[in-house]
Amino acid sequence: MRIFVGCDLGGTNLRAALVNVDSGQVLHQASIPTLAREGHDAVMTRIANLILRVVKDSGFSNTEIGGIGIGVPGVLDIERGVVLFLPNLPGTWPDVPLAKTLEKSTGLPVRILNDVRSITYGEWRFGAGRGVDTVAVFAIGTGIGGGLIINGQLHLGIGGTGGELGHTVIDYNGPRCGCGNYGCLEAYASGPAIAAMGMKAVAQGLTTVLGELCAYDLNRITPALIARAAESGDEVAKDIFEKAGFYLGVAASSICASLGPRRIIVAGGVAQAGNLLLAPMEQTMRSRVHIMPVDQVQILPGQLGDNAGVMGVALWAASHIEQGF
Amino acid sequence: MRIFVGCDLGGTNLRAALVNVDSGQVLHQASIPTLAREGHDAVMTRIANLILRVVKDSGFSNTEIGGIGIGVPGVLDIERGVVLFLPNLPGTWPDVPLAKTLEKSTGLPVRILNDVRSITYGEWRFGAGRGVDTVAVFAIGTGIGGGLIINGQLHLGIGGTGGELGHTVIDYNGPRCGCGNYGCLEAYASGPAIAAMGMKAVAQGLTTVLGELCAYDLNRITPALIARAAESGDEVAKDIFEKAGFYLGVAASSICASLGPRRIIVAGGVAQAGNLLLAPMEQTMRSRVHIMPVDQVQILPGQLGDNAGVMGVALWAASHIEQGF
Repeated sequence: MRIFVGCDLGGTNLRAALVNVDSGQVLHQASIPTLAREGHDAVMTRIANLILRVVKDSGFSNTEIGGIGIGVPGVLDIERGVVLFLPNLPGTWPDVPLAKTLEKSTGLPVRILNDVRSITYGEWRFGAGRGVDTVAVFAIGTGIGGGLIINGQLHLGIGGTGGELGHTVIDYNGPRCGCGNYGCLEAYASGPAIAAMGMKAVAQGLTTVLGELCAYDLNRITPALIARAAESGDEVAKDIFEKAGFYLGVAASSICASLGPRRIIVAGGVAQAGNLLLAPMEQTMRSRVHIMPVDQVQILPGQLGDNAGVMGVALWAASHIEQGF
Repeated sequence: MRIFVGCDLGGTNLRAALVNVDSGQVLHQASIPTLAREGHDAVMTRIANLILRVVKDSGFSNTEIGGIGIGVPGVLDIERGVVLFLPNLPGTWPDVPLAKTLEKSTGLPVRILNDVRSITYGEWRFGAGRGVDTVAVFAIGTGIGGGLIINGQLHLGIGGTGGELGHTVIDYNGPRCGCGNYGCLEAYASGPAIAAMGMKAVAQGLTTVLGELCAYDLNRITPALIARAAESGDEVAKDIFEKAGFYLGVAASSICASLGPRRIIVAGGVAQAGNLLLAPMEQTMRSRVHIMPVDQVQILPGQLGDNAGVMGVALWAASHIEQGF
């Protein structure tokens, strides 16, 4: 049994899990608040302490742990183990040597990987991506992250920045995206973009049960609340997911043309809307793509939920540390 | 010296070349009209005769030839060696067993590959893509074909249909593309789309030297003629290439986000417009992409011209036939 630590550096919480990387099983885990406002040094100290505590509480000794993988929600240079930019964490992380710092404080080898590439790797090896060699992942939450498995390899691109499928442009004339480009999928179908469609509907007084569900407090509107309204038969709420699914299907049609993946996986919190989102996505993709055999491309929800990231990054660290790079 | 035949099945001409696949050198070649209207059986007979004649005229014997690669402008099942759909050739090619038919008539092993994947492989091994492991190719002619080298491999996708970068959507609400999708890059920046912008300018009476260059015969407007007008200082003609370059840059920005290629190569006849097209493409891509280190992505014109395809498909056939698949 090879045991590695998978850690998720989230905007709200830090999570560390001991993972059996042969089976994908999570053996032990714990979570604490990130408290990102305290700055990167404080956050790195908290991560190290969390990891050491999880190992200790698990009953395994440090020498039984092969190493640590950290999933990070931002732009990294994975070869140098450095964080370049974390868009969704307060405070700046300019050129922070995350891997080296944690190696010093834990005494274990550390590898870092973008959080959604971690999910991609986890879903491919242990979840919805098993058994096929080319997989595209959209992870829909605060933003839309992405990841690619191509010909049986996690696609890294330059410094590990490849796979950002949420920044596939769907309208060159579209609204500015958080990334600085215009008309990216993320600007249309991320959690906040979906919530904003709900807020607009309520603010405009459309006939929707959403207003009652949020007690007319627009700040309480979330994709989950809109999904509840849609499931209770609300046509306005259904339309919102139809639209988001359509935008996703357009981006997926570009990915089908360029990559021809065998499977497209939709993960992240917003994917819990299930067929409200996946059915229009699939319908759009299948009706638009004719340049390749789109009937051979499956769309599936993620299967591993919150564990995908820690499982994936633990396994990824294992495969790199054991091969010595 | 390993010698293979590279053949290009074009809508207008058939070309066969004897290629030294170690050096990329074209040793001997010939070209004849395709006469596609005569149907697929007649065309396949012409290809076989052309290949046999090129081999004979070269002075090499059949036993010195390792095999044949055919670059085909359409949708293929490369594993079965079958042509599924040729959008730009008159007559239908439904499920035509091109590889098997030519193996019988030439006595040599045959592999087929999409024409722009052939160009991609040629440019990567012998041209503008040398020395890097991830390359994206846009080939702009009657349509916009594409190809991808990912981690040192030609990306095939399902049945060899992957790499269709011309069918990256840049506006979900855009005009219908020849492929059946809407708003694909091809609908905005292919040769005919560029020519149509020129026709519109002349028809609307804009102040452009293009009208004189075509003697006010709209049928004579081509991307090459618009480039001539632009080079003579015509602002309307320059604007047309600015627009086409902008659309290309938008599609390239999606490819940067998803794949992070080290190099983007622009090939095909329209690429002869050079910086008229490449400068606005590059400017658009560099100003829009911030999610990955876009300064590490080079944009280059193809280096091999018309030889890229026959060189690439000969080498591709060599690598597959020698490895027995």
